[in-house]
Amino acid sequence: MSGNILGERFVLVCYGESHGRAIGAVIDGCPAGIHIEREEIQKDLDLRRPGISSISSPRKEEDQVEILSGVFNGMTTGSPIGMLIWNKDVDSKPYDRILKMPRPGHSDMPAWFKYGGFNDIRGGGHFSARLTAAFVMGGAIAKKLLASVFGTEIVAYVTEIGGIKATPISFEEAKSVRYSNEVRCPDSAAAEKMKELILEEKKKGDSLGGLIECIAKNLPIGLGEPVFDSLDSDLARALFSIPAVKGVEFGSGFNAARLRGSQNNDQYTTVGGKIVSKTNNAGGILGGLSFGMPIVSRIAFKPPSSIPKTQKSVNLETMKEEDLIVSGRHDPCVLPRAVPIVEAVVALVLADHALRAGVIPPVIGKH
Amino acid sequence: MSGNILGERFVLVCYGESHGRAIGAVIDGCPAGIHIEREEIQKDLDLRRPGISSISSPRKEEDQVEILSGVFNGMTTGSPIGMLIWNKDVDSKPYDRILKMPRPGHSDMPAWFKYGGFNDIRGGGHFSARLTAAFVMGGAIAKKLLASVFGTEIVAYVTEIGGIKATPISFEEAKSVRYSNEVRCPDSAAAEKMKELILEEKKKGDSLGGLIECIAKNLPIGLGEPVFDSLDSDLARALFSIPAVKGVEFGSGFNAARLRGSQNNDQYTTVGGKIVSKTNNAGGILGGLSFGMPIVSRIAFKPPSSIPKTQKSVNLETMKEEDLIVSGRHDPCVLPRAVPIVEAVVALVLADHALRAGVIPPVIGKH
Amino acid sequence: MSGNILGERFVLVCYGESHGRAIGAVIDGCPAGIHIEREEIQKDLDLRRPGISSISSPRKEEDQVEILSGVFNGMTTGSPIGMLIWNKDVDSKPYDRILKMPRPGHSDMPAWFKYGGFNDIRGGGHFSARLTAAFVMGGAIAKKLLASVFGTEIVAYVTEIGGIKATPISFEEAKSVRYSNEVRCPDSAAAEKMKELILEEKKKGDSLGGLIECIAKNLPIGLGEPVFDSLDSDLARALFSIPAVKGVEFGSGFNAARLRGSQNNDQYTTVGGKIVSKTNNAGGILGGLSFGMPIVSRIAFKPPSSIPKTQKSVNLETMKEEDLIVSGRHDPCVLPRAVPIVEAVVALVLADHALRAGVIPPVIGKH
Amino acid sequence: MSGNILGERFVLVCYGESHGRAIGAVIDGCPAGIHIEREEIQKDLDLRRPGISSISSPRKEEDQVEILSGVFNGMTTGSPIGMLIWNKDVDSKPYDRILKMPRPGHSDMPAWFKYGGFNDIRGGGHFSARLTAAFVMGGAIAKKLLASVFGTEIVAYVTEIGGIKATPISFEEAKSVRYSNEVRCPDSAAAEKMKELILEEKKKGDSLGGLIECIAKNLPIGLGEPVFDSLDSDLARALFSIPAVKGVEFGSGFNAARLRGSQNNDQYTTVGGKIVSKTNNAGGILGGLSFGMPIVSRIAFKPPSSIPKTQKSVNLETMKEEDLIVSGRHDPCVLPRAVPIVEAVVALVLADHALRAGVIPPVIGKH
Repeated sequence: MSGNILGERFVLVCYGESHGRAIGAVIDGCPAGIHIEREEIQKDLDLRRPGISSISSPRKEEDQVEILSGVFNGMTTGSPIGMLIWNKDVDSKPYDRILKMPRPGHSDMPAWFKYGGFNDIRGGGHFSARLTAAFVMGGAIAKKLLASVFGTEIVAYVTEIGGIKATPISFEEAKSVRYSNEVRCPDSAAAEKMKELILEEKKKGDSLGGLIECIAKNLPIGLGEPVFDSLDSDLARALFSIPAVKGVEFGSGFNAARLRGSQNNDQYTTVGGKIVSKTNNAGGILGGLSFGMPIVSRIAFKPPSSIPKTQKSVNLETMKEEDLIVSGRHDPCVLPRAVPIVEAVVALVLADHALRAGVIPPVIGKH
Repeated sequence: MSGNILGERFVLVCYGESHGRAIGAVIDGCPAGIHIEREEIQKDLDLRRPGISSISSPRKEEDQVEILSGVFNGMTTGSPIGMLIWNKDVDSKPYDRILKMPRPGHSDMPAWFKYGGFNDIRGGGHFSARLTAAFVMGGAIAKKLLASVFGTEIVAYVTEIGGIKATPISFEEAKSVRYSNEVRCPDSAAAEKMKELILEEKKKGDSLGGLIECIAKNLPIGLGEPVFDSLDSDLARALFSIPAVKGVEFGSGFNAARLRGSQNNDQYTTVGGKIVSKTNNAGGILGGLSFGMPIVSRIAFKPPSSIPKTQKSVNLETMKEEDLIVSGRHDPCVLPRAVPIVEAVVALVLADHALRAGVIPPVIGKH
Repeated sequence: MSGNILGERFVLVCYGESHGRAIGAVIDGCPAGIHIEREEIQKDLDLRRPGISSISSPRKEEDQVEILSGVFNGMTTGSPIGMLIWNKDVDSKPYDRILKMPRPGHSDMPAWFKYGGFNDIRGGGHFSARLTAAFVMGGAIAKKLLASVFGTEIVAYVTEIGGIKATPISFEEAKSVRYSNEVRCPDSAAAEKMKELILEEKKKGDSLGGLIECIAKNLPIGLGEPVFDSLDSDLARALFSIPAVKGVEFGSGFNAARLRGSQNNDQYTTVGGKIVSKTNNAGGILGGLSFGMPIVSRIAFKPPSSIPKTQKSVNLETMKEEDLIVSGRHDPCVLPRAVPIVEAVVALVLADHALRAGVIPPVIGKH
Repeated sequence: MSGNILGERFVLVCYGESHGRAIGAVIDGCPAGIHIEREEIQKDLDLRRPGISSISSPRKEEDQVEILSGVFNGMTTGSPIGMLIWNKDVDSKPYDRILKMPRPGHSDMPAWFKYGGFNDIRGGGHFSARLTAAFVMGGAIAKKLLASVFGTEIVAYVTEIGGIKATPISFEEAKSVRYSNEVRCPDSAAAEKMKELILEEKKKGDSLGGLIECIAKNLPIGLGEPVFDSLDSDLARALFSIPAVKGVEFGSGFNAARLRGSQNNDQYTTVGGKIVSKTNNAGGILGGLSFGMPIVSRIAFKPPSSIPKTQKSVNLETMKEEDLIVSGRHDPCVLPRAVPIVEAVVALVLADHALRAGVIPPVIGKH
């Protein structure tokens, strides 16, 4: 129980269910004196909103954030920031049938046993990816804090879907074009192919996975608290909290397993009187600490498990195998909507670690 | 600061430095009534001990664990279990030269800035992989708890080093043969090639990375506390605390990004009246919860950064680029000694989550 | 920062300000399968509601709780329970004048420096006793959990106001009559005098303090996690979170300082085959652990600091001493409304410790 | 389980038993660059050492602290500081008899049930006041940190034993004379009477309680994280972790319950251009925050429960009432040895809150 709290000093608390009344976020520990407008949070929420693209779930939600506390005259007060969005377009009918028929690849089966059948199954309940709206609300505050103090930029984008790989691209280019197409892949040619594939598999009643890369720049040296709260540990932990994530790597990642030390080590030099590394196989993290280079992570998403194709399941009351056809409104590929979620999660962890490292002043602005 | 605590109910606290007086572990939260002998902890420590193989660091340490508290008449008491090993074979001379010359790929540079130059640089200090002896001490208690209550088995082994891949093998076979060779790879033919490659690269002054797979069997359904303390989140966090880890995946992992939902979903059936999945692409975790299938993780280790080849660094006092040759005693490949560390870390997280889920009785044995 | 989270396994998160939009509570970690109706929470909220008695603040608030998540078909689901009440009768005018004139005895002065002047001063903002509505919402869930599993009863009442002491009374009597008068003192003769004194001091523009006693019965032996999370430690911590509390004691409390060991020790005997103590100077807690006897605490409240009498303050901008007359709507004595708050806080800590001790099953009811 | 960790950023972890091998402390989160000598820790340990006074336990322990990690060349490194003292003068014979005969007023009975009889009963095991040596080791580091950054002084002393009250005394006087007599009461006339009374009651086989006052000066404004981690909350929590504490109050404390608001409020004025209060009924804490005035707490200790007088207990195996005579070596009054423990505990909480408030730089000294 009690796993809905992320962070130690910059803390996000989440609540809500897919078909419940609301999705809520509480940020505790945000310093006073940060200018934040409702619209800044809304902008990020709009990027993950369903129903706005041909390749995402048709559920229509306005997802208009309400700030309930912690912001006064447009500035954070130092008190907890309560936020929520209301659920409006709820259709729970498709879930009556699957109440006792756990969907393959979904939380249904272990949740049934863990919560004794009391969990809210409608739309996946608390396990729904709709919960990630709370990550995005909190992440918007974290981004603003990091940008205000360090000028931090966090940029995620799709690099692969269903085996289609994007051409690598510069940080600046990715930053400016990643939201210019529905797929959120900065390589527009690849994005076009990815979109076609998504629509094709959607027609077949199937779904697709892929990769997202996230780069965070302009951060102080020394974020991370080894040995257990090292920066990569806490980033990985938060990234695996996003539904459908099955793998996380930093820098050269799994490929490092095939390199020699002399290939993988990043040699040092100086630029403008500062020590920097000539390469970034470390992905910006050494010994669990940020060292000034961009923090580079890559996240593998599985294909969504809710597909209309006929699958085998077991009726939990009769314990007999049965055929299952999952209906409801689902994304054929979560990657496009996951881009702002990845950015939010990375921002939350970095903000928390900046506070833990003692490099953020107790009050940000001047009154 | 303050990142040396792992877990919430079954808690490991670590302290010590590579060339300090001792490496210590405290386990807080272990239930009373578990039979544990010093030898059981020692057995695991011996598996990660240096100086016992041609392919590991020549540093000679006996690493004899002393239990200082929490065990009385061979049984855990419910009070914190203090343990330590003493450092004996310390040679700090090689570190004088590198004090202000950070080793590429190592924590030296960010640690210098984070701790203002006060951190103990000798042997990497608190960042040394020697700290993982504390993981192993704590993990031995966690393994015993899990085995006593659920009959849990946790088996890790090397599957790839320097690009040489082992043939997949059954759990039972891996369990029985993984410690039969120095490489800890259950495929003895591959192990032989890996060993040759390690010795070859060692001669060249270089180092090698690789992959470890870990399988945990016989666990209850429902471990994990979504959304943030999901089981994969906490396993990944702990695995990234092991030095040199650059990637973690569960089940089909990064490969899931290339599969269709219909390929990746694990269909359900029943075996002996129990619901099980026919495949295990989920790696035993759905929606952040264990669901009764073996928990399968794969961990990517980079090649050790301490290599005797000439590298470029920057003198932190003069801020001039200089050549650096790292001496000292190092492993050319950490994989073989990392096998018991991976098992320990997985056991610690599983024990913690079993207590959090409320499926372990407050007292284990009968008086 | 980040102090709005109480508990480890049964967790309460609070947000809101006196004159903000809402007061919110999130309970994370409540087991699934507890029957809870909105009305049960509302009943406790009504007991602390302002505007319903001649001796409390005239602010009119309906304080109707809305359950946003975590309860489905009248049963807890195991997911976080989001709740809130809206603020409606807000009058922020009186606070314009005191913005830079900290009220003596109030948080205004240190909050000004801590939050750089960005904190919401209206009605005391996040420091307002209105936040305790969140304690009561969470406490209602905790009470229901404890009652469902152990039949626990938690009964608080006023024993002293402004020096007027109530005659000691039995638990059963206190339980049945404590809410029968506005003062919430089970000795009705004393209650009458207390009420008169409160009205008299209110007329004079002054305020009164007093004592509340709280007794919790029907709890398992062994709650508490020494040495730091002992039961008295965690109860005291939570009780001091209630505004205006200046002292907490258990059992013989401060009087124990004047007793001999032979007087203060509670001798053991058996009743119905169970070991019990003949007296309860320990207040139900030995060595930081519950031992089956009722848990008895006594809490000292100071007189409210917001009084209309002329006081000396210092203008934080000019740093000149000035006269201050505090207006706004305030309680002349917080004790009557604090009774349900004390019960709530005690319930929250006991529920958390019952989960920590592993004596509550993972799922409560049967589906 | 798992309650042996105090603090969030400046963290103390404790382990050990009265008759085990050692008592250990780990401080995690101490900033780098604080000069600390073993002798500074030893000095505080010597003040709580048994066997050095006619009015304390005759157990002879040298209690020589060993620093195992985290200090290098006399400076903290930022890594966890492991410390321990060895147990040497252990006499466990007296505990054979009481194994199943719980001592009235002691943890024996609830510990028996909580730990299923597996807890180490010898000398009270983990419940022994000997554990407070770990508080003192950690507290010495906390004191040094606070003194280095803020010039903080923390002074505790005995104000009452067995009903004998000391005359109030100035902070400066208390600071200089409190350790000049065995009782640690700065009023030497009262101290003499207290000592006589202790020796007298000891002869009778009885024991005495009393009061300790603690004053902390020179602290920044704004320590404390309301609503739950307010400064008084966390101080109270830590103080109740000291064995035998039954009550805690701040400032006017329980007496505030009898004052009017106009009497209890501390009016503001300015001194040297700074805002201060003319009185200190608040005990230095308003709204859970420090406000620049000295932090004043008073702690009530019960008389030690281990007395040689015949008492009634119940045999936990036969469940029959029996006479019990407690032997072993015990203090007839814990107050004198508790003075450095109170100071240590207050220092630990203040150091933690100073780090949480962000008013301590990440690195203290200059290299």
